[in-house]
Amino acid sequence: MVRLDSSTPGFAQDFARLLTVKREISEDVDETVRDIIAGVIAGGDAALVDYTRRFDRLGAEFSQARLRVTEDEISAALDACPPEALAALTLASERIEAFHRQQRPEDHLATDSLGVTAGWRWTALESVGLYVPGGTASYPSSVLMNAVPARVAGVPRIVMVVPTPDDVVNPLVLAAARLSGVHEVYRVGGAQAVAALAYGTPTIAPVAKIVGPGNAWVAAAKRRVFGQVGIDMIAGPSEVLILADGHANPDWIAADLLAQAEHDTAAQSILITDSADLAQAVEGAVERALASLPRAEIARASWQDYGAIIRVRDFDEAIPLVDRLAPEHLEIETAEAEALALKVRNAGAIFLGAHTPEAIGDYVGGPNHVLPTARSARFSSGLGLLDFMKRTSILRCDAEALRALGPAAIALGRSEGLEGHARSVAIRLNL
Amino acid sequence: MVRLDSSTPGFAQDFARLLTVKREISEDVDETVRDIIAGVIAGGDAALVDYTRRFDRLGAEFSQARLRVTEDEISAALDACPPEALAALTLASERIEAFHRQQRPEDHLATDSLGVTAGWRWTALESVGLYVPGGTASYPSSVLMNAVPARVAGVPRIVMVVPTPDDVVNPLVLAAARLSGVHEVYRVGGAQAVAALAYGTPTIAPVAKIVGPGNAWVAAAKRRVFGQVGIDMIAGPSEVLILADGHANPDWIAADLLAQAEHDTAAQSILITDSADLAQAVEGAVERALASLPRAEIARASWQDYGAIIRVRDFDEAIPLVDRLAPEHLEIETAEAEALALKVRNAGAIFLGAHTPEAIGDYVGGPNHVLPTARSARFSSGLGLLDFMKRTSILRCDAEALRALGPAAIALGRSEGLEGHARSVAIRLNL
Repeated sequence: MVRLDSSTPGFAQDFARLLTVKREISEDVDETVRDIIAGVIAGGDAALVDYTRRFDRLGAEFSQARLRVTEDEISAALDACPPEALAALTLASERIEAFHRQQRPEDHLATDSLGVTAGWRWTALESVGLYVPGGTASYPSSVLMNAVPARVAGVPRIVMVVPTPDDVVNPLVLAAARLSGVHEVYRVGGAQAVAALAYGTPTIAPVAKIVGPGNAWVAAAKRRVFGQVGIDMIAGPSEVLILADGHANPDWIAADLLAQAEHDTAAQSILITDSADLAQAVEGAVERALASLPRAEIARASWQDYGAIIRVRDFDEAIPLVDRLAPEHLEIETAEAEALALKVRNAGAIFLGAHTPEAIGDYVGGPNHVLPTARSARFSSGLGLLDFMKRTSILRCDAEALRALGPAAIALGRSEGLEGHARSVAIRLNL
Repeated sequence: MVRLDSSTPGFAQDFARLLTVKREISEDVDETVRDIIAGVIAGGDAALVDYTRRFDRLGAEFSQARLRVTEDEISAALDACPPEALAALTLASERIEAFHRQQRPEDHLATDSLGVTAGWRWTALESVGLYVPGGTASYPSSVLMNAVPARVAGVPRIVMVVPTPDDVVNPLVLAAARLSGVHEVYRVGGAQAVAALAYGTPTIAPVAKIVGPGNAWVAAAKRRVFGQVGIDMIAGPSEVLILADGHANPDWIAADLLAQAEHDTAAQSILITDSADLAQAVEGAVERALASLPRAEIARASWQDYGAIIRVRDFDEAIPLVDRLAPEHLEIETAEAEALALKVRNAGAIFLGAHTPEAIGDYVGGPNHVLPTARSARFSSGLGLLDFMKRTSILRCDAEALRALGPAAIALGRSEGLEGHARSVAIRLNL
């Protein structure tokens, strides 16, 4: 953990160092991934079964017939879920749905004074593939956050892939698939699952877009198939930035910093405050909270290596720092939190006030928890309904409108050396 | 050019072949590009000047001081433009602006019955870099289509890079930059320009996102810097698909097919019709029109290698073919064109009726001419205002709302093995 103070001479360099620290070692798996993708394209289901047996340690009893998880298996998983978790998942699903329904974009068509009708129409993607990691990173909440917006968008075919290493699957993940309206579930993962979704096999029809988090192999595979299909952003380690003043509760702030840090040793938790007392109190509170945290080893490593407490003179001074960090999650626990939030340009999501810990947004707030990491909130948004839709523009000229606009189009076509463009207009105007 | 007929037995295979034909040979320039990017990161302006001298054949008189195109040089370029072209460019700019103003997204914030306030806020990107190719592909209309939406979005810093091989620059390109509100113009291109925009040099401050078309080097560089900055889609060769019935004018249809084919030998023009007479008449009309077309060599190669005329029994049969082709441009010149358009899911832009040649949309229609190619209209949209903005989600719970939602968040955190998440909520509820 580093302690920075904006009033010290070395601050600009220290802060720049914080910005550029590499938290992720990208494994070079690109060649392996290329071969796996080629293998699935050439070998179809047989290759998919073969890779899955090998990488997920499944025996010879795993076959083409077992690729798809049946509706009965999903129903059985639902029955096996703890009722309290299932109820919480249902509440989360309903709230995510209600929030994303508000994101529906409007079609538009208007005719101007020249008689030109122009506008656009939004349509849902025809199919989407959702990647869900296996093992300990198999989060049911992520299934909801990816699949519910796809269903709300109206995607008629939502496919989920989830690896089942050692034949183990989290029943809550299958329950989340059922709750969120996933149409097909396959027990495959890794680059081979991405290849199957992109190029199709006899069992898995190809999709138009692949979303969802994954390890280095999955990320490399998504980069490789981009173009053949659409992909969402490549997620990096999670981050929180907290702005808090001297009135904040240091134990609450410490809990929020550690909720982020427990994700991953590469996660990052930063506090910016104008209060020396709070800075010191939070430091102590983090140590106390770590003592009893089950994932203390991970959280401690993250806090030690990437954590930071930054002292500023006032919060106006903090705004440019926030915009440069462009955090995935920004908590604001200061007086006039709303006013401060309005000054921020770059953040994936903002959590306002002392009673909005970021974890509420991870599960049941309603907004999506898939958010831009690694400073990409400078240029991208969290997942939303629009990621499962696309816009077709529409143009209509009548004869009179073409007469009004045609000469300018002809002039521009000729100025660009594209006489064929000019002629396609001129021929309709007898020019 | 291939002739297909949906009523023949081999049609499904023939159509599938048309879908999968590779029109672009992707040059393997990735290693060169990696070295150039590393060179610019290490060498800054000096590296940029060195690469530019070499690749754009500029002499020793080209120096750091010449990297930026001055306002005086842009004013001089404006004076050098043919008045007719300049007037057309001005009209285009105004229409593009008027259209994109209608795309402004709305912020949203609502409080639900539990007392949870949730919504989002759109903000403009802080800076954007626009790549403009040099030489014959230096199109002023593309400057407008990329820069005007950025300005309408409210991007406070719009940077343009354009290579000037042999020290030649198209004055209309500089005029378009001025008209569309570009703030800085640099005479650099290729992977070195992309590297400068992504990582910055002493002369060129880095941007948050890079947009605009380019050759194989530019495309490879954009892929490489993605993550450091945002990028737009990677544009492939242009395409048009025309649906026309027996009432269509074969000479007009031929002109539209050739307007697309003249772009590039890898462009693709396809006609789908229910009329054998129109199919035959268009074939003849294409040959006649080619005879006097300045870019006949390019257009002929495109038409011969990738052109197609597809006979269908009726247009309902055409809709699934359209959706599978997912064309960049779709012209509909049939009876009930609007009704037919509503049935299409996948198309970048639709041009309705006999008086809307696609070239109108290239220049002065208003909608953007940067559209998804190579079947990517299945999952992506044309360029628009949203590409220059991003959405920050906002969440606020009061104490009561947290009491209502907290237990479900705690349950989900624990079910995912993230006790720190659960505690960050529980500590606020004294649980």
